[in-house]
Amino acid sequence: MMDYHQQYEEYLGRARQALERACERYLPEESEVCRAARYSLLGGGKRIRAVLVLSVCEMLGGDGAAAEAFAAAVEMLHCYSLIHDDLPCMDDDDLRRGRPSCHKAFGEATALLAGDVLLTEAFEAVANAPADPLVRVRAAQALGLGAGSRGMVYGQELDLKYEALHPTEEQLRLIHRNKTGALINAAVQMGAAAACATPDQCRTLEQFAYGLGLVFQIVDDVLDVTGDAAQLGKPVGSDAENEKTTFVTLCGVEPAMALARQINEDCCSALKAAFGPRSAFLVEMAGALLERRS
Amino acid sequence: MMDYHQQYEEYLGRARQALERACERYLPEESEVCRAARYSLLGGGKRIRAVLVLSVCEMLGGDGAAAEAFAAAVEMLHCYSLIHDDLPCMDDDDLRRGRPSCHKAFGEATALLAGDVLLTEAFEAVANAPADPLVRVRAAQALGLGAGSRGMVYGQELDLKYEALHPTEEQLRLIHRNKTGALINAAVQMGAAAACATPDQCRTLEQFAYGLGLVFQIVDDVLDVTGDAAQLGKPVGSDAENEKTTFVTLCGVEPAMALARQINEDCCSALKAAFGPRSAFLVEMAGALLERRS
Repeated sequence: MMDYHQQYEEYLGRARQALERACERYLPEESEVCRAARYSLLGGGKRIRAVLVLSVCEMLGGDGAAAEAFAAAVEMLHCYSLIHDDLPCMDDDDLRRGRPSCHKAFGEATALLAGDVLLTEAFEAVANAPADPLVRVRAAQALGLGAGSRGMVYGQELDLKYEALHPTEEQLRLIHRNKTGALINAAVQMGAAAACATPDQCRTLEQFAYGLGLVFQIVDDVLDVTGDAAQLGKPVGSDAENEKTTFVTLCGVEPAMALARQINEDCCSALKAAFGPRSAFLVEMAGALLERRS
Repeated sequence: MMDYHQQYEEYLGRARQALERACERYLPEESEVCRAARYSLLGGGKRIRAVLVLSVCEMLGGDGAAAEAFAAAVEMLHCYSLIHDDLPCMDDDDLRRGRPSCHKAFGEATALLAGDVLLTEAFEAVANAPADPLVRVRAAQALGLGAGSRGMVYGQELDLKYEALHPTEEQLRLIHRNKTGALINAAVQMGAAAACATPDQCRTLEQFAYGLGLVFQIVDDVLDVTGDAAQLGKPVGSDAENEKTTFVTLCGVEPAMALARQINEDCCSALKAAFGPRSAFLVEMAGALLERRS
């Protein structure tokens, strides 16, 4: 039996192949906009969302081919959000994953269109997935709900709104729930769709997804204070510099980590109770995201 | 029996109601981004794409409720493209339909997100349409193909690329085929999907859609020279001012109109041959777009 890291690598390999197939099919080389989209899409990252699609589907004994198409779609969607988020009128970031951000490399108009094309093709990839129409519809519903006005875009809006203000812990949770949690839940639900999960299973997975998203965000805030810039591949201390309200400024480092551990324990227990030993990979993944150093 | 104008008004009324329902469901009032999206979405326009979805579906005896959801979706998608197109890094337009463009009214970041949310919710509206899953999948495929890297976004890219150059007639046709024709074809194919059209019917309708789109564009170019600013609701002569290559600069006004008439005749004959008297509304609509003064 494969250990956790081997299994992660295996999922990562499948995600990479699925993304390459999606590029071939949906991002033709002759277009500069599509080259810009590929530049950002294939520029690395943890591929957490893709791995979630694949591992949830596998846990539920579902169809891997459909999950691979959905995994590519959710990474395309995540990538569009990063490209638009980096634009001058948003966070105005020159760097992304240690390389020039999309608009720095290709210009603003091309980056805007590259984001638009990734968002569009993410939904087209779902519509064209090798799966029963109802499975594709459920995946598209999950993606739309997680990415749109009651999910990620709403989170972006809240993030901009609270930039100058100082959110309470409740408001901070609402921002992260929408900005990060909603798309993580979409990934999990797309994996569930590929496996024709029951409504009960979907509800349990939703709790897990939002817990995972929140833990991820709390650890992000902690690493910005305690992390190692070289290991992280980005400067530390940027939150303090920007006077950003985070779980660390609200609670302190140790209480924030204690909160993250508690949320992780709760959401993993619920997963184990519902899915038994088959949940092992997801439980380990959650633990790894909690204990990560980068 | 209703005459053409009554029929158009009837479709327009259904389109308006469908858009209002979509706003209720997908663009919650408490979000500033969604208010910006509503501002642009409900700001008027001819609703040609929505009317095409509804009338094609009706011609083929299809399901009106599904077509209404698809009509709202294609207008949401069209609206996103206008909002992003008006942004400073694209055409930098301060006015749209005689009102401040979205970013002038709401700021750039909110307008960017309003476009993103309309694009996302367009696909969610398709996924949630009251129709068989296969019908929804077909409509999503048509929308993705028309809006993405082999359709509208590619057209935007070509349009930017040829701004400074001078396209030949062939290149100009390629720009318009992608920038305008592809989404008009998506609208037509979504109407066809709602009616479970045969592949043969879809092919005939595709010819019609691209013909209609090209005629629309040629007439646009002519009206920019011969039109009345008050009637058009926008200044005339802007193409010449921007030294833009158009069908008028390439052929002259009269030959351009002769070309438009020829294309219109060809595509309407094919429609009549395939669908007989049931094609009457679409044929009249094509004629009205050819003869329009605004």
